Amino acid sequence: MSKVFVNIGLSLDGYMAPEGMDLEHWEDPSYKNWGAKWGSLMGWILKQQYFRENLQFGSGGETGPVNDMLRETMQRSGASIMGKRMFDAGERSWPEEAPFHTPVFVLTHEEREPWERPGGTTFFFVNDGPESALQKARNVAGDRDIRISGGADVVQQYLNLGAVDELEIALAPVLFHGGRRLWENLDEAIPQFKIDSAHSTPDATHLRYVRV
Amino acid sequence: MSKVFVNIGLSLDGYMAPEGMDLEHWEDPSYKNWGAKWGSLMGWILKQQYFRENLQFGSGGETGPVNDMLRETMQRSGASIMGKRMFDAGERSWPEEAPFHTPVFVLTHEEREPWERPGGTTFFFVNDGPESALQKARNVAGDRDIRISGGADVVQQYLNLGAVDELEIALAPVLFHGGRRLWENLDEAIPQFKIDSAHSTPDATHLRYVRV
Repeated sequence: MSKVFVNIGLSLDGYMAPEGMDLEHWEDPSYKNWGAKWGSLMGWILKQQYFRENLQFGSGGETGPVNDMLRETMQRSGASIMGKRMFDAGERSWPEEAPFHTPVFVLTHEEREPWERPGGTTFFFVNDGPESALQKARNVAGDRDIRISGGADVVQQYLNLGAVDELEIALAPVLFHGGRRLWENLDEAIPQFKIDSAHSTPDATHLRYVRV
Repeated sequence: MSKVFVNIGLSLDGYMAPEGMDLEHWEDPSYKNWGAKWGSLMGWILKQQYFRENLQFGSGGETGPVNDMLRETMQRSGASIMGKRMFDAGERSWPEEAPFHTPVFVLTHEEREPWERPGGTTFFFVNDGPESALQKARNVAGDRDIRISGGADVVQQYLNLGAVDELEIALAPVLFHGGRRLWENLDEAIPQFKIDSAHSTPDATHLRYVRV
């Protein structure tokens, strides 16, 4: 059966996004300095060859173990699940050929027809909750795995459902001091994880945890 | 000049100690399951040869890179600073030969004469704040470094003072879901850190950050 995995960037102090990084201030990255903070969180990925190609950032970029990890993450993914805030931000930012190349299930209260993009990404808008979205993702993922893309509240919901098999965190050496915190709103009985692997570069420590 | 370093264990979700681990429940580790949680946070250190010897836990234990790190941490330390809660817990738990072998400055409102232990540890009780404790530590540390031992509130105070040069975190794969959180009460303008090294074992990822 498909594994369910989380793959996210996290600040050393546990934030998935800095304060001020919201739709209202999307065009103003100097607001609370969110643009620079986000850049420092994601600096490691922005220079990888595979990521640059996928986001149509241009040619070049690093190759090596981190680039390989990115490719493997993409290749194992048969479907993604994300929250509405993340989708809204991406809708403004992704290239026309959205960087998923699979079905993506967006948790939202908004009703909307599926949105098909060139390159194999179709966004489906799910109004009946995270368990339904996960079932829909399983139905289409085949042998491939299901990625929980974020944001923090969506990751929390799937952790609380006990549905997450693997937790992949790129821990960046930046202190945000505020923003969207990953480690909150969790139930007492959340599953526990053990370290599976760690790979460190000067930009981030890539931690992989699997269910105990 | 002496470096000021933090060296702590941290749960994956950012807690230095689990909920329920307080003096009132010190003899009842089943309270909120704090004993097992603390054990899972500190499992990696409890089996190291150097730590076992220093705490008089008995002979044996692992040798290798993690054990070497522990020895280096001890050998570089010319003084330690800790909070009163940590001292109170330690006073009940440390062997007569307390495991520091240097002066230790305890931040407290309580007035108390210095408490000298066999083996070179003397506890000094500092009533006039963290900057004074740091100056006192510098006065005795000589060429060696100053360790900020904890708890979370003491680490936060020194981060906010901009006094921390190095941040060493043993990140254990355990989710506490509550307790004493490290990453809070920090000022907006706290210094930033960069990754200096990382060493991972199945029990913990040993992360070392230095000031940018």
